[in-house]
Amino acid sequence: MSLEKLFRPGSVAVVGASSSEASIGAELIKNLLRGPFQGPVFPVNPHRKWVLGIKAYATVCEIPDPVDLAVISVPKERVLAVIDDCGKKGVGAAVIITAGFKEVGGDGVALENALRDKLRQYGIRAIGPNCMGMIVTNPEVRLNASFAATPALPGNVAFLSQSGALGEAILALAKSLGLGLSAFVSLGNRVDVSVNDLLQHWAEDDSTSVVLMYIESFGNMQRFPLIAANAARKKPILAVKSGRTAEGARAASSHTGALASRDLAADALFEKTGILRAATMEELFTLATAFASQPLPKANRVAIVTNAGGPGILATDVLASGDMKLAGLTPETIQTMRAVLPAEASVNNPVDMIATSGPAQYEVCVSAALKDPGVDALIVIFVSPITIDSYAVAQAVVRGKELAATPEKPVLVSFMGKVAYEEGARYLKDHKLPVYVFPEEPAHALIAMDKLRRFRERPIGDVVRFEVDKTRASAAIDSALARGPGSQLSPMELAELLSAYGIATLPLEVVDSPENAVQAAERLGFPVVMKISAPTLVHKSDIGGVLLDLKSPMEVKGAYYELSERARALSSPHHLIVQPYARGGQEVILGFSSERTAGKLLVLGLGGVYVEVLKDIAVRLCPITDAEAHRMIESLKSAPLLRGYRGGAPGDIDALVEMIQRLSYLAESEPRIETLEMNPVLIRPAGHGVAVLDVRGKLRE
Amino acid sequence: MSLEKLFRPGSVAVVGASSSEASIGAELIKNLLRGPFQGPVFPVNPHRKWVLGIKAYATVCEIPDPVDLAVISVPKERVLAVIDDCGKKGVGAAVIITAGFKEVGGDGVALENALRDKLRQYGIRAIGPNCMGMIVTNPEVRLNASFAATPALPGNVAFLSQSGALGEAILALAKSLGLGLSAFVSLGNRVDVSVNDLLQHWAEDDSTSVVLMYIESFGNMQRFPLIAANAARKKPILAVKSGRTAEGARAASSHTGALASRDLAADALFEKTGILRAATMEELFTLATAFASQPLPKANRVAIVTNAGGPGILATDVLASGDMKLAGLTPETIQTMRAVLPAEASVNNPVDMIATSGPAQYEVCVSAALKDPGVDALIVIFVSPITIDSYAVAQAVVRGKELAATPEKPVLVSFMGKVAYEEGARYLKDHKLPVYVFPEEPAHALIAMDKLRRFRERPIGDVVRFEVDKTRASAAIDSALARGPGSQLSPMELAELLSAYGIATLPLEVVDSPENAVQAAERLGFPVVMKISAPTLVHKSDIGGVLLDLKSPMEVKGAYYELSERARALSSPHHLIVQPYARGGQEVILGFSSERTAGKLLVLGLGGVYVEVLKDIAVRLCPITDAEAHRMIESLKSAPLLRGYRGGAPGDIDALVEMIQRLSYLAESEPRIETLEMNPVLIRPAGHGVAVLDVRGKLRE
Repeated sequence: MSLEKLFRPGSVAVVGASSSEASIGAELIKNLLRGPFQGPVFPVNPHRKWVLGIKAYATVCEIPDPVDLAVISVPKERVLAVIDDCGKKGVGAAVIITAGFKEVGGDGVALENALRDKLRQYGIRAIGPNCMGMIVTNPEVRLNASFAATPALPGNVAFLSQSGALGEAILALAKSLGLGLSAFVSLGNRVDVSVNDLLQHWAEDDSTSVVLMYIESFGNMQRFPLIAANAARKKPILAVKSGRTAEGARAASSHTGALASRDLAADALFEKTGILRAATMEELFTLATAFASQPLPKANRVAIVTNAGGPGILATDVLASGDMKLAGLTPETIQTMRAVLPAEASVNNPVDMIATSGPAQYEVCVSAALKDPGVDALIVIFVSPITIDSYAVAQAVVRGKELAATPEKPVLVSFMGKVAYEEGARYLKDHKLPVYVFPEEPAHALIAMDKLRRFRERPIGDVVRFEVDKTRASAAIDSALARGPGSQLSPMELAELLSAYGIATLPLEVVDSPENAVQAAERLGFPVVMKISAPTLVHKSDIGGVLLDLKSPMEVKGAYYELSERARALSSPHHLIVQPYARGGQEVILGFSSERTAGKLLVLGLGGVYVEVLKDIAVRLCPITDAEAHRMIESLKSAPLLRGYRGGAPGDIDALVEMIQRLSYLAESEPRIETLEMNPVLIRPAGHGVAVLDVRGKLRE
Repeated sequence: MSLEKLFRPGSVAVVGASSSEASIGAELIKNLLRGPFQGPVFPVNPHRKWVLGIKAYATVCEIPDPVDLAVISVPKERVLAVIDDCGKKGVGAAVIITAGFKEVGGDGVALENALRDKLRQYGIRAIGPNCMGMIVTNPEVRLNASFAATPALPGNVAFLSQSGALGEAILALAKSLGLGLSAFVSLGNRVDVSVNDLLQHWAEDDSTSVVLMYIESFGNMQRFPLIAANAARKKPILAVKSGRTAEGARAASSHTGALASRDLAADALFEKTGILRAATMEELFTLATAFASQPLPKANRVAIVTNAGGPGILATDVLASGDMKLAGLTPETIQTMRAVLPAEASVNNPVDMIATSGPAQYEVCVSAALKDPGVDALIVIFVSPITIDSYAVAQAVVRGKELAATPEKPVLVSFMGKVAYEEGARYLKDHKLPVYVFPEEPAHALIAMDKLRRFRERPIGDVVRFEVDKTRASAAIDSALARGPGSQLSPMELAELLSAYGIATLPLEVVDSPENAVQAAERLGFPVVMKISAPTLVHKSDIGGVLLDLKSPMEVKGAYYELSERARALSSPHHLIVQPYARGGQEVILGFSSERTAGKLLVLGLGGVYVEVLKDIAVRLCPITDAEAHRMIESLKSAPLLRGYRGGAPGDIDALVEMIQRLSYLAESEPRIETLEMNPVLIRPAGHGVAVLDVRGKLRE
């Protein structure tokens, strides 16, 4: 069912309309009339003949004309009855302002479920309940179905907020920055319309170029990654996701679990879909201002034209902190600029025209910089000396941009100081140029724009469906499940499971006597490793539970006694294990965990104790394509160590890439496994593969 | 010489005063009169009898009354003559606006040197040249000796800017934020008055509580660290330091050099002195607004009182990203709040009072939170629902704060949305409460305030003057100097030098034949290490120049031939070296480099290839106290590895602390050494000391 009746209603009824000063029922009517809404507005109030000068009806059913949208602000006990009326009347959509549902718990949850059933029954699409409403600025619609105190300027930015209270602030900020909105939706409890629905709608909406989101939690995660990725390839999507720390504190049962906290899950989701995450509301607006009016740069080479050195350096510092470069200017560009600039000007990039330069110099330098084939984006900075007219400078910047005729190159402006608040800045905004007070802001915005360009240019890659032996894998999981849900898998079960998915682990034998251990070592070949394996033991080395490089039967026997002694302290079932001693290569950790709201998260990190201490990890959402697996490795700070560093042999990256994909496939195919962690995995020199030295895994509860 | 005549002049002459519209000479007079300056203003202009209605004089000497300060804006050719006049007249201070000195190079440099000489000759303290002037708002002075278009609001924040152009912007921004200034100084070329002078002045100035700086380079580094540290212990000093990337790119001749780029030098300087670094101009203002009116918190426990959940979460996220905690509220506090709040309110921290709460609830909750002994700081957030009067809320917040009577606890406010621009926000500012538009900003500000508290509370420690053998050290350096300045020190010279400073290196022998090598190995004891040592070879392992764990004479001979072969490719003089093979411990890198502007920088990092790949390093400015050495180690992400991690033995931290101090002492005492790098240093288990496995060092050019 489309959202047509919500976003383009032909008529609106306000149920709970009121004339009382400062009541929501009055504000709803006033906002609709102020629009003015491009269709009739029908107040509904059983106790009044008219509301704020407009004829009122006792119920929706009594309205003689068709009603597309009902805005509902009645006591919560009456909402279901109103929906019944709407259903009978054939109303297609509802904005339910009323609070007191899921958010208050208890009866509220039941009430919300009943509401959902009724909406489905009548086929009514609804926003809310417990929201501040929605706004559409399209001149053919002009719908302000909210009780917001601030109207929205028309524009091309759609905004969804999971916090009603923030909605009011968002509208005021957008207005103060001159940021025009195509639509604003306060989602409320999401009884029906979800983030997914809105993303799908706005991806196809001609009046929307950029989507902003304030979200506290994700909705339907089965569909979200695909819907969001599809939308983000069409339009920039910028999001503030809050609540990152409150959830991150939960206790962890394995390395992977601890590392893949919820905030990493959100980051993985954004990384996967191409949604750009803003750290703060302020950054969200800084970025939105640029994305709303400027194209993405074609590459990362930036020119800066300024009349003061200091601000140019500040912008440069920020650019260099991202993956941006200062463009090298051609001799022609430099000559063109030199011809109009004072001798003291510096015609490097940043181009410091110095304080005596005015409109004439801005026009020529802006135009020349934009025409330069080595320039992909331009930052113009103006700090007003008293002798230069800022309005004339603003006009010159616009003329320079028009002269260059390079609409494909983004131009961002900083008007510093008093001029930030004067007509020149307004002139620039009116000519679709983003204007910032601080010179660092356009630099931050360009970094984000270029990040989106690179995201769109990079290959998506393929999800490989490997030939695997699911029967063997199931048998291994069944064997563990016999011990109950939530059980740890045994070393042998894990070896079986992984082997069924084409991931070979080092051979191992479980031993129960010193003689046994020696025989196993002889079968596997010296030197060997012996270790304690126990469900409760996450960090074997904490209790000295791993003994390496045992070269003789005597050493193996000694190790058996020593480990048996140490294992006794565990007071839980355990095994002793013998494995060949593998050496030579870089250790990594590779595993996955299941996140209730985000799906399966794969974690790759530099191995050993470093992964925990230095937190150099990459987290991605499954399924992982071949291209993603490569990027995952490259995103590690320690990637140079895997590629071969300072005389070290390059590691077998191809084998690691394949292993990442196979583990991703396992994670997706075996929902009964909650977490699995291979730690360490030895990355051998190129051509020699990878070796899994130790594995832990746990069934779903 | 004090800055008294600059900051409290009794009379001012404006040399180059003019009546022309939009001229600097006119703006200077206008700004002085607008103050109005609390004393007489004398225009000086040889061509006019009066300027802007005030009697003018042909020269400073003709002024009949005493003149304390001359503001000079004449063509650069005439500046020296004007200074001569000032000298004759007995003028005590000058603000030199005129440009065309050092900043234009060539003749300008000579002119500036002549200017400096003249100023010294007459004992005149001067700001500039090439600056926009200075402002003092003290009501007894009211000096606006600048051509700034924006006047400064009176207040307690002193601002110095190394960029004149930024100065104009700074004044406009301060005004728009309602941030009052005690003084503003555009430093210009710093022919006389320096950053050091101003810090010393403001540290003692009763009308200044906070100092802000925009700096592009540091001044006299011999004195700066001490002066700044002294000032920062008295008053918060916040700085934006730009130009961090341009300088960072210079080629590096050693690991330490590459790591200790100039930006790290600035960070080390700020770390040493307690100056808080802001990343952007915007952050500088965010922090300044809080520091200007609020005390530092006594500890890091924060309460948040809000009428909307979303903004509370946003603030919490930021707090958790710093070292801040959400305070646990006492049962009494919770009871007091519950008594006035709606049932749906959440009386955890953040206290979400929900949208229906108004002034009465704010007053009680603000007061109760502040009275709670477990709360050190409070953030109040208000998002305006249409039904609540924001002015009344502002009054309630102020009343709540007054009722609590806890002036020692900082209170920061976020008024989100439309109310940010209304009278309520103004009321709060008038009552000395910082108000922010975004809820993340007060959280960022509290993190910075708490950082300064911790800086002030931490022990400074002692610089230990070790008993060392400077004669032996000098002999080793002389021996290297015989090969010319800039030479590398030989392994033997380095061993001598370090040993003279009480830092023992592993014994080593330089060998020149296979037989020699075997004899050396037998003397040192097997197993041994052999390696190539050559001035041009920074990374020995790049060419396989290190062979470890040689256990027998045969292995040593083989290693000799192999290394000789590899060394041949070097085409530069080299030695082969035999050393005992040391194992068992964590490797670190420790070294120092000399920064022209910052002095000696000590660098400590996790050893091996990790230091370069993972950049986990600590950089500090010498001399380093015992307390600093400990903090340096603790600041490493990898510190847990040194303390003993997951069954590993704790390393000998005490020995490392001593080695850091000894190396700092060496760096300070031997200016002829430009860089020295010990890599790796093996940190043995506690009580077993540290072992320097390899050293490189270079003389000053």
